Amino acid sequence: MNFPSLFFLCTFVYTLLYMEKFEVTILGCGSALPTTRHFASSQVINIREKLYMIDCGEGCQLQFRRSKLKFSRLNTIFISHLHGDHCFGLLGLISTLGLLGRTAPLHVYAPKAFESQLKSQLEFFCKGLGFEVTFHPVDTQQSSVIYEDRSVTVTTLPLHHRIECCGFLFKEKPLLPHIRRDMIDFYNIPTYKINYIKNGKDWVTEDGTIVPNSRLTLPAETPRSYAYCSDTIYIPELSQYLQGVSLLFHEATFSQKDLARAKETFHTTAEQAATLAKNSLAQKLCIGHFSARYEDENVLLKEAQQVFNNTILAKENLTIKL
Amino acid sequence: MNFPSLFFLCTFVYTLLYMEKFEVTILGCGSALPTTRHFASSQVINIREKLYMIDCGEGCQLQFRRSKLKFSRLNTIFISHLHGDHCFGLLGLISTLGLLGRTAPLHVYAPKAFESQLKSQLEFFCKGLGFEVTFHPVDTQQSSVIYEDRSVTVTTLPLHHRIECCGFLFKEKPLLPHIRRDMIDFYNIPTYKINYIKNGKDWVTEDGTIVPNSRLTLPAETPRSYAYCSDTIYIPELSQYLQGVSLLFHEATFSQKDLARAKETFHTTAEQAATLAKNSLAQKLCIGHFSARYEDENVLLKEAQQVFNNTILAKENLTIKL
Repeated sequence: MNFPSLFFLCTFVYTLLYMEKFEVTILGCGSALPTTRHFASSQVINIREKLYMIDCGEGCQLQFRRSKLKFSRLNTIFISHLHGDHCFGLLGLISTLGLLGRTAPLHVYAPKAFESQLKSQLEFFCKGLGFEVTFHPVDTQQSSVIYEDRSVTVTTLPLHHRIECCGFLFKEKPLLPHIRRDMIDFYNIPTYKINYIKNGKDWVTEDGTIVPNSRLTLPAETPRSYAYCSDTIYIPELSQYLQGVSLLFHEATFSQKDLARAKETFHTTAEQAATLAKNSLAQKLCIGHFSARYEDENVLLKEAQQVFNNTILAKENLTIKL
Repeated sequence: MNFPSLFFLCTFVYTLLYMEKFEVTILGCGSALPTTRHFASSQVINIREKLYMIDCGEGCQLQFRRSKLKFSRLNTIFISHLHGDHCFGLLGLISTLGLLGRTAPLHVYAPKAFESQLKSQLEFFCKGLGFEVTFHPVDTQQSSVIYEDRSVTVTTLPLHHRIECCGFLFKEKPLLPHIRRDMIDFYNIPTYKINYIKNGKDWVTEDGTIVPNSRLTLPAETPRSYAYCSDTIYIPELSQYLQGVSLLFHEATFSQKDLARAKETFHTTAEQAATLAKNSLAQKLCIGHFSARYEDENVLLKEAQQVFNNTILAKENLTIKL
C-alpha cells in the first residue's frame, strides 16, 4: 500500500471510530425511589472520545465502570438540579477519580446553591485530592451557552420543577467536509495539503487553474444535537429550543392516567414528552426517569409511541448512537 | 385442634420465624474503588425482625431493596469510619425513608466528626424531612457498649485504620428457656401460665407439690454474637473481644502476598483475618472488603481456609443465618 492510500485508510478508520462518535450512555434512569430495576439519574455523552456526564445520581461511578467508559476521559459534569437522585453520586465519583491518581481539573456545572455544599463535602471527605474541582454556577432561569470546546457547545434549557432546574442541549460544531479521494488523485494534490482543502480552500494547479473547493470535497454531515430534559413539568414552549434535535431525552415519570400526580410533583407524562418531541420535529425520543410505580414501563413506551413513533425506553447501560 | 395445641403451634412457628432470627445480609463488600462485581461496604443485621445497618456505602439503599428488606424496620445505623465507601449512601437512604413517609426517628451512630457534616447535608438536601435523625457520637478508641435494646447489645471494637475507626460486636441477650410440652400437659398447667414458667418460675400443683422450673423447661440456646471488623490493619489483640463469636466478619482487603500494601494502607490480609478467627475460637469467618485487584476472590478464600477452614466469602445479597 502506498503512502497516500495508507494515509486515507488511517484517516477513514480514525474518523469512523473517533471523530464521528456522538453517543449517549444511560447510567441510570429511575426516579427518586430506588427499585431493583433502575439506578438514579445519570448519563454520559461521548463526543469524539471526550466524555461529559449529565447528572450523577447514587451509583453512577459503578455504572460508569459497568459501561466500560474511561474515567480519565471525563472532564465535565453538568448537574440539572439538586435533588439527591441527580447528584448524590458526585462525591463518590470524585473520590474514585482521586484514588485513580487523576491530576487534571474536573469541571462541575450546577446551580449556584451547590457551590458551598460541595466545597464543604470535598474538604471533609476528600482531603489531599490530587486535582482541582472547578465549580461553574449555572443560571437555570434562561437559555444560554455555558460550555464550549472545539467539538460542542452546551446550552441550558430552562425547566420548571419543584426546585430550580435546567436541561442541557449539546450541539455538535459543524464538521469539516469529506475529501473526494478521486479528485485528490486526479489533481495529484500532496497529502500534506489535505487539511488545507478540508478547511475550505481551493486548489491551484501548476498551470494556475483554480479548482474550487466544492469540486474537491463532499459536504459534511449535518451537525448532531442531543437534548436532556429532566426533571420538569410539561413545557410546550421548550420546543423552540429543540427544533430538529437528533435525540431528545425527556423525562416521562408518569403515564397520562397519572397526569394529576405529574402536575402536582412537577413531572411530565409519556404522552406529553412525545408531544414535545413531535412539536420539536425531533428525530428520536428517549424517555426515562420512570416512577417506581410502573413495573412494566412498556405502558409508558406505548403511550409515547402513539404520539411519536420513534420513541425508545431508557435503560441502564444502553448506548444510543446519534 | 384444641386451644393449647393451637397456642403451642403458633408459639412454635412465631419463635421459628421471628423470635430466633439473627441474620446478616451483605449489601456490599467491595472496597473503595468501584468494580462491576461489588457494591461499597454495607450490611444489615436482622435480629427478630428489627434491622440494624452497619456502614452505608453508595448504593446501599438499592441493595437494601434488592435484598427485600423492609425500610420501615430499620431504626439504627452504625458507621465504622468516615471513608466514602462506608458512608456515601447514607444521605440517599435518608431521603428515601423520607419519601416513604417515615415518621419514626432514625438513630445514627458514627464518629463525632461526622455530626456537623451530616447536619449540614440534611439541612441542604432533606428540608422538611418527616422524621428526626438522631446522631450518637461514637468513641472509636475504646471498647464500650453504645447501644442496647431488649434483644441485643452493641459494643464498639477499637480498630486501627488511616482515620479513626471501630468495629461493632452484636451480642444477643440471653434467650428464654424452651417449655417442655409434655410436662405442661402432665401437670395440666394452664396456657396463661406459660410465660410465668418461661421466665424461670417453679410450678405449684393443687396439692402443694413444688415442681422445679428445670423439670418444666429445656435450656435456651447459647446467645449468638456477630462481630464486624472493617477497615483495619491486623490487630492480634482484638481476639480478646471476640472469644467464641458465632460469626466474625473481617476485612481481607489483600492477599498475604500483598502484605506490604496491606500494612501501608492499614488493611488486613486473608491469612491474618483467618488467624484472628482461629485465635478467637470463632465459629465461622466471613471475609470481605475485597481490593479491586483480585478478579477471582477465591485466592483470598483459599488463603484464609488454610488457617481457618470455616471461612466464606462475602457476596452481595448473601444472607448468613447465625
